[in-house]
Amino acid sequence: MTNNSFTTEAEELGKLRDEIDSVDQQIQQLVNQRAQCAQKVADVKEHFSKPGESVVFYRPEREAQVLRRVMERNQGPLPAEGVARLFREIMSQCLALEEPMKIAYLGPEGTFTQQAALKHFGHAVECQGQGSIEDVFREVEAGGANFGVVPVENSTEGVITHTLDSFVGSNLNICGEVALRIHHHFLLKEALLKKGAVANPTKVYSHAQSLAQCRQWLDANWPGIERIAVSSNAEAARRAQEEEGAAAIASEAAAELYNLNIATANIEDMPDNTTRFLIIGKQTTEISGDDKTSLLVASKNKPGALYHLLAPFHEEGVSLTRIETRPSKSGTWNYIFFIDLEGHQNEEKVAKAMALVQQQCTDFKCLGSYPKAVL
Amino acid sequence: MTNNSFTTEAEELGKLRDEIDSVDQQIQQLVNQRAQCAQKVADVKEHFSKPGESVVFYRPEREAQVLRRVMERNQGPLPAEGVARLFREIMSQCLALEEPMKIAYLGPEGTFTQQAALKHFGHAVECQGQGSIEDVFREVEAGGANFGVVPVENSTEGVITHTLDSFVGSNLNICGEVALRIHHHFLLKEALLKKGAVANPTKVYSHAQSLAQCRQWLDANWPGIERIAVSSNAEAARRAQEEEGAAAIASEAAAELYNLNIATANIEDMPDNTTRFLIIGKQTTEISGDDKTSLLVASKNKPGALYHLLAPFHEEGVSLTRIETRPSKSGTWNYIFFIDLEGHQNEEKVAKAMALVQQQCTDFKCLGSYPKAVL
Repeated sequence: MTNNSFTTEAEELGKLRDEIDSVDQQIQQLVNQRAQCAQKVADVKEHFSKPGESVVFYRPEREAQVLRRVMERNQGPLPAEGVARLFREIMSQCLALEEPMKIAYLGPEGTFTQQAALKHFGHAVECQGQGSIEDVFREVEAGGANFGVVPVENSTEGVITHTLDSFVGSNLNICGEVALRIHHHFLLKEALLKKGAVANPTKVYSHAQSLAQCRQWLDANWPGIERIAVSSNAEAARRAQEEEGAAAIASEAAAELYNLNIATANIEDMPDNTTRFLIIGKQTTEISGDDKTSLLVASKNKPGALYHLLAPFHEEGVSLTRIETRPSKSGTWNYIFFIDLEGHQNEEKVAKAMALVQQQCTDFKCLGSYPKAVL
Repeated sequence: MTNNSFTTEAEELGKLRDEIDSVDQQIQQLVNQRAQCAQKVADVKEHFSKPGESVVFYRPEREAQVLRRVMERNQGPLPAEGVARLFREIMSQCLALEEPMKIAYLGPEGTFTQQAALKHFGHAVECQGQGSIEDVFREVEAGGANFGVVPVENSTEGVITHTLDSFVGSNLNICGEVALRIHHHFLLKEALLKKGAVANPTKVYSHAQSLAQCRQWLDANWPGIERIAVSSNAEAARRAQEEEGAAAIASEAAAELYNLNIATANIEDMPDNTTRFLIIGKQTTEISGDDKTSLLVASKNKPGALYHLLAPFHEEGVSLTRIETRPSKSGTWNYIFFIDLEGHQNEEKVAKAMALVQQQCTDFKCLGSYPKAVL
C-alpha cells in the first residue's frame, strides 16, 4: 500500500458512516412507528367519543411529561435540551397527522412571539400572525385558531398589561407558558463605526431596565459613557440615529428599523434574560406533575385586603410565584390581582386554598392550570 | 364494571402510550448513538490531519446524501419532507458537538434569510444577522463566520444583483442553495375592514410580478378592481395606507410596516412561489450525486458572443438552468454572465465543457459546485 494512513482514515470513516446510516434507518423506522401509535390513539379517542363531541388530540400535560422524561434520562453526548427539542418536533409532526393545528400569534412574521409559538408547538403547525393581542384572543374565541400565543412578561418592559386586561373579558384558558431568551446589542450609526476601530460615542440611550441589565458590560467596555434612560429601546435607537455621538442598547429589530449597526452583540450581563409568553385556548389541561395556576382575583380597595386574600395560600402551603395589581376598568371591581401559584387547580391543597380565597373576594376567576415551561 | 367502554378506552390508550414511551426511549438512545459516531468521525479526522491543517467537519454533500436517502426510503405515515427535517435537526445537533458553527445572514432577525439559514443548517448553529449582503461576504471572508446565507433570486423582485456583484470581488465559494416558499397577502386599512364585511376598495397596488402571481385569486374575488403596478410591494403597502379606497398585495412585514391588516392571507395562485438563497463559504464541496455548478463568465460585447460561449455545454450535454447578464463595472470586462448548470465541476463532461468555455472568454471563475436543495 502506497499511503497506509490515508487508507486507514478512509476505512475508519467508511465504517463509522455505515454505522451512522444503519442508526439513521432505525431512527426513521421508529419515528414512523411512533406516528402510527399516535394515529391509533386518535382512532381510539374517536371510537369512544360521544356523537357531536369534539375529540381532544393535543394534551399539553402529556407533552410536558414526555419532554421531562426525555431530559431526565438523557445520557448524552447530545445535550438534554437539544434532544428534548427533537422530541418537540417529533410530537409536532405526529400531532399534525391527527389534527393539523392553527396557532394565532402576535405578528408579524419574525417576532419573538412567533419564535415562542414554534418553540412550544414545533414546526408542524400553521402559524397565523395577528395585528394585536386582542386579535389573537378573538381569533381563538371564534375558532379560527386552535390556540393563541401572547407575550405576558418582558424582562425589559415589565408586564404586558394588554394581555392581562384581555383575560378579564375572555373565557379562554391559559394552556401553557413559554420562555424565550432575549438579547441586547450595543448599536451605533454607520458613521461611528470606522474600519477596524469604533469612534467614541459620548452617551448611550436605552430603557432603564436594559441599562441595568447591561451595567457590567458598560462598566468594562465604556466606563466613561453617559447613560441616559428613555421610555423604550426603540426610542433609544431613534435617538442614536438622530443625535451626534450617541449609541443605543436595543434589539436587532430596533437596529434595522432605525438603520443602526450592531457594534457588539449580546451584551446583557445575565445570559438568561427572558421573555415569557402564554398559550391560550378553549381546553383545560390535566395535571402534569409540575404545574402552575394563574388566577384573576378582584377585591375592594381597603387596606390589608391583599394580605387577607393571600392568607389561605400561605396556610395551605401553596407558593405564589407572581402577583400583579391592575386598577379595575369596571365600577364593580376596584382592584384586580393577577396571581401565579405553583400547583394545579385539581390538586387538593390548591383547590382548598382557592375555594377559601373565592369566598373573600368580589370576583374570582381561574385563568387555567398548565405545565411549567420545560424547554 | 360500571363503565365498560371507559375502562376499555383508558386501557387502549394506556397500552398505546406505553408503546410510545418505549419507542421514545429507543429513539433517544439511537440519536445519542449517532452523536457518538459523529464524535468518532471528528476524532478520526483530527488524528489523521497534518499539523496546522484545519479539519473540515461540515460536509454539505454528505448531508444532502443523508437527506435524499431519508426521503427515498420513507414509508410513512409521516411525510418524507417532515422526517427529512427531523434529520436536518439531528445532524445540526451532532455537528454542533464537533464544531458549533457560526452563520452570517442578511439580517435582521426574523427575515426570510434567517429562515433560510435555519432551514439549511438546522437550529444548533449561532446565527449572526448582518446589515448588508456585502457585510455577510466580509464576515465570512474575515473568518468571523463559517458560512454566510444571502438571497439570490426573488420570485417577485427578480435576481438580487447585489449578491451576484459581490461574487465578482470575492474568493468565496457557493456551498449550497436553499429554497423558501413566500406568501402574498391582500392588505387593507383598518377603516376598510368593517366588522363581518369588507368595505370595497376600488384599486389594488402591487409589484407587477405579484399582481401576475395573484391574478386568478383577484379574478375570482375582486373581478372589478383596478390593478396598478408599482415599483415594489412595500411601495404598494405605503400607498394603500395613504390613499382612500386602495388595497395592496404584499408581505406580512409590509403590512406591519405600514399598519395594514391582512384581509386575506396566502392569495398567490401558485403555492410554490419561492425565493432562492445561496450558502457561501471558503470550503469546496464534493460530488453529492445531484449537484449544480455556478459560473461567472466575462465576454467581449460582440454579437453572438453568448451563443459561442454556450456551445461547449450543448456539445457535452450539460444542461444550463439559468443565465443572468450583468454589465461589467471594470473596464476589462464588458459583460458578465452568471450561469447555473446541472452537474458538478469534478464530473468529466462538466469539467470538459468548462475547460472549453474558459478558452473562449475574457475571464472565467467557477463560483462553486454544490448539492441541489433537498428540502
